[in-house]
Amino acid sequence: MSRVVCDVAVSMDGYMAGPGQTRELPFGSIEHNRLYDWMMHDGEENRTEFDAMLDAGAFIMGRNMFGPDRGEWDLDWQGWWGDDPLYHAPVFVLAHRARADLPMGGGTTFHFVSDGADSALDRARAAAGERDVVVVGGATTVNQFLAAGVVDELRVHVTPSIIGAGERLFDGVPPSAFEQVSSRGTSLVTHLVYRPVR
Amino acid sequence: MSRVVCDVAVSMDGYMAGPGQTRELPFGSIEHNRLYDWMMHDGEENRTEFDAMLDAGAFIMGRNMFGPDRGEWDLDWQGWWGDDPLYHAPVFVLAHRARADLPMGGGTTFHFVSDGADSALDRARAAAGERDVVVVGGATTVNQFLAAGVVDELRVHVTPSIIGAGERLFDGVPPSAFEQVSSRGTSLVTHLVYRPVR
Repeated sequence: MSRVVCDVAVSMDGYMAGPGQTRELPFGSIEHNRLYDWMMHDGEENRTEFDAMLDAGAFIMGRNMFGPDRGEWDLDWQGWWGDDPLYHAPVFVLAHRARADLPMGGGTTFHFVSDGADSALDRARAAAGERDVVVVGGATTVNQFLAAGVVDELRVHVTPSIIGAGERLFDGVPPSAFEQVSSRGTSLVTHLVYRPVR
Repeated sequence: MSRVVCDVAVSMDGYMAGPGQTRELPFGSIEHNRLYDWMMHDGEENRTEFDAMLDAGAFIMGRNMFGPDRGEWDLDWQGWWGDDPLYHAPVFVLAHRARADLPMGGGTTFHFVSDGADSALDRARAAAGERDVVVVGGATTVNQFLAAGVVDELRVHVTPSIIGAGERLFDGVPPSAFEQVSSRGTSLVTHLVYRPVR
């Protein structure tokens, strides 16, 4: 069966996004945002970890990672990633409201799952086959899967800034022990891989 | 002038200690405590970073790192570290109440500073000469110096557990950017060194 992997970038103080998300500010209002400098400015140095994040048979994300609208769907909104999103696989979006599947270019289709995280995981596993299911964010979604004890591997990309407010990784996740599988620092980030001790 | 360095071990979720400190539980009640496994079980592998932490002309700590008593001093309490504490240098303890200097073996003397963090830093700098002043904890004390903008280097030892409650590094510290100076993973911990971007 496919593994469940969470793969996220955080600030030194554990935030994955600031408050105040808008169409123009997908990660909210962050005074010192270095969360994605390592992807933008130092891609080659971090190629291994970036490729690993995208090496999945299916993805799961929360609605707020998909878009800035709340409540009723804004059907014009098709995600932040343009016509050919980087996922190239089915992406299951956790949402409270149903919405028709949204096929994009390059093999990415957004499926909106309104009957809970368990259902999203079942559907993602079925789609992924033997490959990994990667949960990419946001914090609420990742924390939900961590708290449920279904995560096989956690990859955290720690970036050098203090954000101070927003969506924090690990909030509400019960105390637990992990094994540090690997750790690699590059110029702008440190890539940590953990597995839960069960 | 001497540099001000903070050197601390944290859980994956940023805690430096759990709640409920007692004489028997210096780090409080922590269900999965891996904060110091790297020192206890893997000392040689982490020798460089452990030695760096202790390479200082003076240390600063908060009262709760010195001991579990609150309010009036329990004068029988002489710290957690026995007759020959590992510091081998003056240690300035931030406290609200005055107490006479407490000389221990091996060159460690605890000085209790009741007139504020600025005063403690002045005295530590004077004692350290050209060497570093190392702020060793707890979180409240480290956060106070970080928020004051007087820290030249921050060393964080990230350990593989989720603690979920207690004293958290970076709480109340304003947003700010850092440079990642170095990053080294060993079996049980990742050693991160940051410097503020000013």
